[in-house]
Amino acid sequence: MTGFDSGLLDPTTGAAAEADDRAVLRALVDVEAAHLEALVAAGVASGSVRWAADEIDLPALAAASASGGNPVIPLVAELRRRTPAPLADAVHLGLTSQDVLDSALMLVAARSIRRAAAPVGRVLEGLAGLAEAHRTTPVAGRTLGRQAAPTTAGLRLAVLLDGVARTRRALGAAETPLQLGGSVGTLAVLTDRLGADGAEALRTRVAAALGLAARPGVWHVERSAVSLLGAAVAAHLGALGRLGLEAVQGSRPELGELELAVGAGEGGSSAMPQKQNPVAAVLLVANARRAPGLAATLLGSQLALDERPAGDWHAEWQPLRELLRLLLESAVLAERLVAALDVDAPRSRANLEAGDGSIHAERAQQVLAQRVGRSRAAELTRTALAEGDFVAAIRRAAVDDPDVDEATRDRLAAATTTGGTVGLSDRLIDASVAAARGVDR
Amino acid sequence: MTGFDSGLLDPTTGAAAEADDRAVLRALVDVEAAHLEALVAAGVASGSVRWAADEIDLPALAAASASGGNPVIPLVAELRRRTPAPLADAVHLGLTSQDVLDSALMLVAARSIRRAAAPVGRVLEGLAGLAEAHRTTPVAGRTLGRQAAPTTAGLRLAVLLDGVARTRRALGAAETPLQLGGSVGTLAVLTDRLGADGAEALRTRVAAALGLAARPGVWHVERSAVSLLGAAVAAHLGALGRLGLEAVQGSRPELGELELAVGAGEGGSSAMPQKQNPVAAVLLVANARRAPGLAATLLGSQLALDERPAGDWHAEWQPLRELLRLLLESAVLAERLVAALDVDAPRSRANLEAGDGSIHAERAQQVLAQRVGRSRAAELTRTALAEGDFVAAIRRAAVDDPDVDEATRDRLAAATTTGGTVGLSDRLIDASVAAARGVDR
Amino acid sequence: MTGFDSGLLDPTTGAAAEADDRAVLRALVDVEAAHLEALVAAGVASGSVRWAADEIDLPALAAASASGGNPVIPLVAELRRRTPAPLADAVHLGLTSQDVLDSALMLVAARSIRRAAAPVGRVLEGLAGLAEAHRTTPVAGRTLGRQAAPTTAGLRLAVLLDGVARTRRALGAAETPLQLGGSVGTLAVLTDRLGADGAEALRTRVAAALGLAARPGVWHVERSAVSLLGAAVAAHLGALGRLGLEAVQGSRPELGELELAVGAGEGGSSAMPQKQNPVAAVLLVANARRAPGLAATLLGSQLALDERPAGDWHAEWQPLRELLRLLLESAVLAERLVAALDVDAPRSRANLEAGDGSIHAERAQQVLAQRVGRSRAAELTRTALAEGDFVAAIRRAAVDDPDVDEATRDRLAAATTTGGTVGLSDRLIDASVAAARGVDR
Amino acid sequence: MTGFDSGLLDPTTGAAAEADDRAVLRALVDVEAAHLEALVAAGVASGSVRWAADEIDLPALAAASASGGNPVIPLVAELRRRTPAPLADAVHLGLTSQDVLDSALMLVAARSIRRAAAPVGRVLEGLAGLAEAHRTTPVAGRTLGRQAAPTTAGLRLAVLLDGVARTRRALGAAETPLQLGGSVGTLAVLTDRLGADGAEALRTRVAAALGLAARPGVWHVERSAVSLLGAAVAAHLGALGRLGLEAVQGSRPELGELELAVGAGEGGSSAMPQKQNPVAAVLLVANARRAPGLAATLLGSQLALDERPAGDWHAEWQPLRELLRLLLESAVLAERLVAALDVDAPRSRANLEAGDGSIHAERAQQVLAQRVGRSRAAELTRTALAEGDFVAAIRRAAVDDPDVDEATRDRLAAATTTGGTVGLSDRLIDASVAAARGVDR
Repeated sequence: MTGFDSGLLDPTTGAAAEADDRAVLRALVDVEAAHLEALVAAGVASGSVRWAADEIDLPALAAASASGGNPVIPLVAELRRRTPAPLADAVHLGLTSQDVLDSALMLVAARSIRRAAAPVGRVLEGLAGLAEAHRTTPVAGRTLGRQAAPTTAGLRLAVLLDGVARTRRALGAAETPLQLGGSVGTLAVLTDRLGADGAEALRTRVAAALGLAARPGVWHVERSAVSLLGAAVAAHLGALGRLGLEAVQGSRPELGELELAVGAGEGGSSAMPQKQNPVAAVLLVANARRAPGLAATLLGSQLALDERPAGDWHAEWQPLRELLRLLLESAVLAERLVAALDVDAPRSRANLEAGDGSIHAERAQQVLAQRVGRSRAAELTRTALAEGDFVAAIRRAAVDDPDVDEATRDRLAAATTTGGTVGLSDRLIDASVAAARGVDR
Repeated sequence: MTGFDSGLLDPTTGAAAEADDRAVLRALVDVEAAHLEALVAAGVASGSVRWAADEIDLPALAAASASGGNPVIPLVAELRRRTPAPLADAVHLGLTSQDVLDSALMLVAARSIRRAAAPVGRVLEGLAGLAEAHRTTPVAGRTLGRQAAPTTAGLRLAVLLDGVARTRRALGAAETPLQLGGSVGTLAVLTDRLGADGAEALRTRVAAALGLAARPGVWHVERSAVSLLGAAVAAHLGALGRLGLEAVQGSRPELGELELAVGAGEGGSSAMPQKQNPVAAVLLVANARRAPGLAATLLGSQLALDERPAGDWHAEWQPLRELLRLLLESAVLAERLVAALDVDAPRSRANLEAGDGSIHAERAQQVLAQRVGRSRAAELTRTALAEGDFVAAIRRAAVDDPDVDEATRDRLAAATTTGGTVGLSDRLIDASVAAARGVDR
Repeated sequence: MTGFDSGLLDPTTGAAAEADDRAVLRALVDVEAAHLEALVAAGVASGSVRWAADEIDLPALAAASASGGNPVIPLVAELRRRTPAPLADAVHLGLTSQDVLDSALMLVAARSIRRAAAPVGRVLEGLAGLAEAHRTTPVAGRTLGRQAAPTTAGLRLAVLLDGVARTRRALGAAETPLQLGGSVGTLAVLTDRLGADGAEALRTRVAAALGLAARPGVWHVERSAVSLLGAAVAAHLGALGRLGLEAVQGSRPELGELELAVGAGEGGSSAMPQKQNPVAAVLLVANARRAPGLAATLLGSQLALDERPAGDWHAEWQPLRELLRLLLESAVLAERLVAALDVDAPRSRANLEAGDGSIHAERAQQVLAQRVGRSRAAELTRTALAEGDFVAAIRRAAVDDPDVDEATRDRLAAATTTGGTVGLSDRLIDASVAAARGVDR
Repeated sequence: MTGFDSGLLDPTTGAAAEADDRAVLRALVDVEAAHLEALVAAGVASGSVRWAADEIDLPALAAASASGGNPVIPLVAELRRRTPAPLADAVHLGLTSQDVLDSALMLVAARSIRRAAAPVGRVLEGLAGLAEAHRTTPVAGRTLGRQAAPTTAGLRLAVLLDGVARTRRALGAAETPLQLGGSVGTLAVLTDRLGADGAEALRTRVAAALGLAARPGVWHVERSAVSLLGAAVAAHLGALGRLGLEAVQGSRPELGELELAVGAGEGGSSAMPQKQNPVAAVLLVANARRAPGLAATLLGSQLALDERPAGDWHAEWQPLRELLRLLLESAVLAERLVAALDVDAPRSRANLEAGDGSIHAERAQQVLAQRVGRSRAAELTRTALAEGDFVAAIRRAAVDDPDVDEATRDRLAAATTTGGTVGLSDRLIDASVAAARGVDR
């Protein structure tokens, strides 16, 4: 019995277990348990029980879910069987299956987000270290696929770092609320039992026990918590995926600005003996490509009717869970990637210098423009570009031009020399590193 | 060991097994086996072996997939271990892992599509029967959520039937090609061994053995077969989902135009003793809501670089497989739904007649317009609408108006009488039923 | 000259003008102007200019954009032409086209969000008023398309209100940052001119002038601000769309729990004289259905390479702008809808009472369970449900059962009487109204 | 008056005009005109009229669309005004606005698809020519971002060609049906007028006049024609986008395997004087990235209720039209790209030879394996790979090894020599070229 999906098509690091069916089942049981304890505390029932979620026959439960359309219905029956009378009567009292499943998925989400924080923290640390180490490493900045102007390897890494840090912060700020409203969201049954104050207190207690946010309202059909959470996960996966994309590209042998140490036995090919594939980077890209479609389904599910929806809610479960799986996986993959990543400083500089020097044209022109005006500078630049060896040509032109003074020639030299500080690169790196170090882990 | 996903969040009818990890593994083995047999037939190797795919330790294989990023690499090692020398040397000869995984997923797709045909065939039969049975049952046609003009229950069902039949036909026409190109799609290794004719013949033979289409080209990065297949599955899920949507809506007690027999033990609620939820219909809607996001990911994966892609390919596997799972599930759910479905003819007529008769206004006005012109007819209609009991009022107006002759009054009576033929309804039903019966099953 | 899209396929209230091409052009000019003023303030240039954005030939500019792939290139040439020398030389100094376009789109976003706040504020006010007015109006709570348990019209409206308020708050919190980094994000040219402190100060000044957030970093390829903004817009559109969905459904004549006053001349049909279509509600649904696909494109665009992307950035412009258009439109449509919306209290109660009373079964059973235990209560309920007139039957059963005391019978009567407080409904309404009133407008 | 969108954010080649608002308006008028002529032919009315669609005030019409939610309602009034009595009475007779808008959008689709065929035909021709010209140009085949095995530039181009040809064929096969069903799809009014035969004949006649497919059924809520059409457009955009992606990547100066001639004045930057951006390629990528989200919205719109939908239909218009716009644009951009594209054969070969020769390892190992068995060959290969200059090392090893005969050494030499035929490359190129030449243009 291996279930529908054991990861054959989702090469897994093991981290995904935090969001697997067993984890969902555990969370479902945790929700029912917290509710039952709160009822006991409220005096509705007495006694106690400890359900061993891992002993529940998961495949049987999944199969039994088909007739009612969700796993809570057979689970409640199972839990009642495992509870001594009369406590059994209080199990699930006043709840609806959506209360339990929504809360359980939020619990799985909260746990997955927390779990992913540690490897992502190491990603932030690793990228910050690399950015600082390579703050002056010159590299060709590229735009629209072409060399554009010099930048630093450190700044490139700092922008990657920024993406991971910002999206991690957004994810950490996403709300994971408790759902507890009863069949149509009125808490009528619990209010009948406990009075309005008692029902409210129970809800607060259950939320606290589970570590979920206690909203005043119910959100059976107000699904923005789910869609915004999904978007935050997808955005984080996007930032981690960009890490993979840059790593694959930068470590192509023809570019070689990044080095990816591939571990023994890793990255092999079924056909080519020499191949070492950047597996972690590739899977980071793949996971990021899968996220937007899943997030879109969650956004679409907000369009729900009635007090509880007829299908839109059911459409959320797997996309949300799949996003959490990808999050858990990508966090570990990114950690692995960053641990193996380094900048090849000589290759970076060599690529920059391999061209005809025209990569320095913008700064050169602007330095000249300050002295001789924009159109004259543009002409000098155009002429120098046509000569082929731009840096030599533009310096020569500056010497030949009577209007260019020595200070300008010095500034031109500085602006066309590879290495050294580039614009605000240093400060931008510092700012990114400082911000990243402030992210909770 | 229950794997990541045993269906706890995808209440399963069991049909999904045709696309589960075990089925994928079986297909992977089938591809390697067909290839090995073709090599033997070509004289490259001799001997034979029968691999028992179901004996392979699936979780171990999934775990071993992580380092290489796909399951084929450890599978080939496993199959070689299970093959006597020297035949073992020929296993996977000249292939790349993408050849095997692409072909296997196409095999799973072809099998899933075929498997879904039988229940969908029964859906078509069931809907056709209902459409014919209710070809004259009057019902209020609704547009933009409002009663608009009379139609028939049969025609409403015929349009549903059309959707299922057309999308099924499109799905049946989708190509499921063999992939066989070797590491970079040149078939170099196999051509070295077998010559160009031999390599081509081998490819044809493998395709035939697996029942896959034999394309001349390779499609390692030409992914339109996958994206168009995904879109066809999604479109079919959309048509099946609309069935669910109409069933949920039509069987709301406040409308009651459709009846949904709910089986014993089915559709229960965890909270409300009286509830019988239309579970199959609800899940059909949910499955359809999940399809577009998955199909979008496949469309996006066409943007692949190089001879084989670095992530875009990996991003396809699960969305494609998930679409097949939904297809298998929805086919069975739709069969179940249609078997339980009936039209409540008296309620249908009653809803139509519950209004003030204004639902007949368009036809009435047009009948009058033929005699007295458009603007005069519009005025008569407006006046009759204002009176409240439209049918009586407009007939009275036709009597009072000297320009309206008896033939027109007769036609007005026919056009404002509930029941009887409505426009082309009969012919449209016949055409839909005939077309649906022509769909392969 | 009417342009590509004048709203023929996007029936427009006029509100969309805040995000149209002219508005984008105005924002582009605003960004260049703020930058130029900051340069003057920094002493780089002197003089001043006021560009009249509305005098620029927009179609000509759009046509000229084709060769460079974005409108900033021809715009800068145009602005320089409109600027006296030597100030003209300072126009766009140190910027890249992405700086200007990113900042301009963020400006359009910020303005659109602000503009939409007023009508949405009236939506919140209107819904809050309705929720309070109907806090005790009984209505059938429905789940999975079936009557489930009684609730109040006020609570139903409060949940709608919650969705609009929460997503509006999330949208208000979305970051709209300035982009200002120069060709590869280093600010090299501006640093050459102004020094590091000067370049930083200039950036701060431009951000302040435009009312955009001043990030330390550049985000040419760190696109989470765009994708999270897009998701926030989409989530808000989802909440507004649900308003439309509920309005269409609730005002179907067969349900009639909501009334939609349709203005004169509004909602007409091209065919049916009696029709009054709920146009605003329908368009709210349509706009919400379009949002997730657009948001998904933005999420996917995070996967950008290099210092500035080759296509992924270009793919963002229209989806982001289209989301803003939908936001502007839906805000006004929702205002119009809510102004026309009322609850039909008698129909609401009548629908609840039209059934066999089984809608009261859950609360009845739970009241009994408190006295006679869960299984006995379940049996009594099952028996009463079978009798048909549930409320009478269960009350009779409570009288006949010797174990049911008078207090329980009283509580049973209360729990099965339509009207009066339902669970926490009152408090939930109060909480939603209070929270909604705290949303910035 | 420039409308909402004049292409400022969609840098336009002008081709998009085939799908702009004016084109939609023209199609709307064409549909009404064909219908009116068919009515006259059927004897329902007499006279004739020629409406000048381009004289209709488009912005006014768009503004007037808001109250009814679609442009047909005010258009019909306008057309009636422009038609002499009594013919005016027959305008739109028996139609509903959805008939006209659906048919018009299908007309725009058919025209756009046809219009895009010519430039795409030139793309096919151009790619076929390049593939043939470079059928023996050696180039490094790459997988997962790494050099993998030699292939030919011709085959790489042939796979690109395949994608464009196959998706073009799929697009050509997409159905563009007439919609003509009247208010609720029964054709009741037309049947009342013309009888069943007459109504059917009218529908056939209108379809023929417009060049649209004549379906027996109505598809007001059976939207698979739209969603499958959208998917076909998106798949084609994906294939064209991959062309752009490969062109950007292959023409990066660090790779240089492709040359992109950039026209004078084209591809300039707002900042960098030396830049020549691959604008057409970049926009092809951007357009392809936007397509999946739009296609997903169309797939989602299949979930429509009733006889005509309340929002799902409205949600289709812009995504469908936007897909057509992207199609028209990308066809022309791809033509431009391919006209500017060439293979840099020396750089292609140089990149292949720049490595350590390990790119030949797979074929070398397989040649040896045929003689000395798989495991011995693997060991020889491993050893040679470790030495650094793989080709020399493996040939030396083959000389040193007593079991390797001369024939094998010859075959080893052939398998490790750059240039000459690679596997089935020649035949695959021929097949792709032949297939592409068979595509209708």
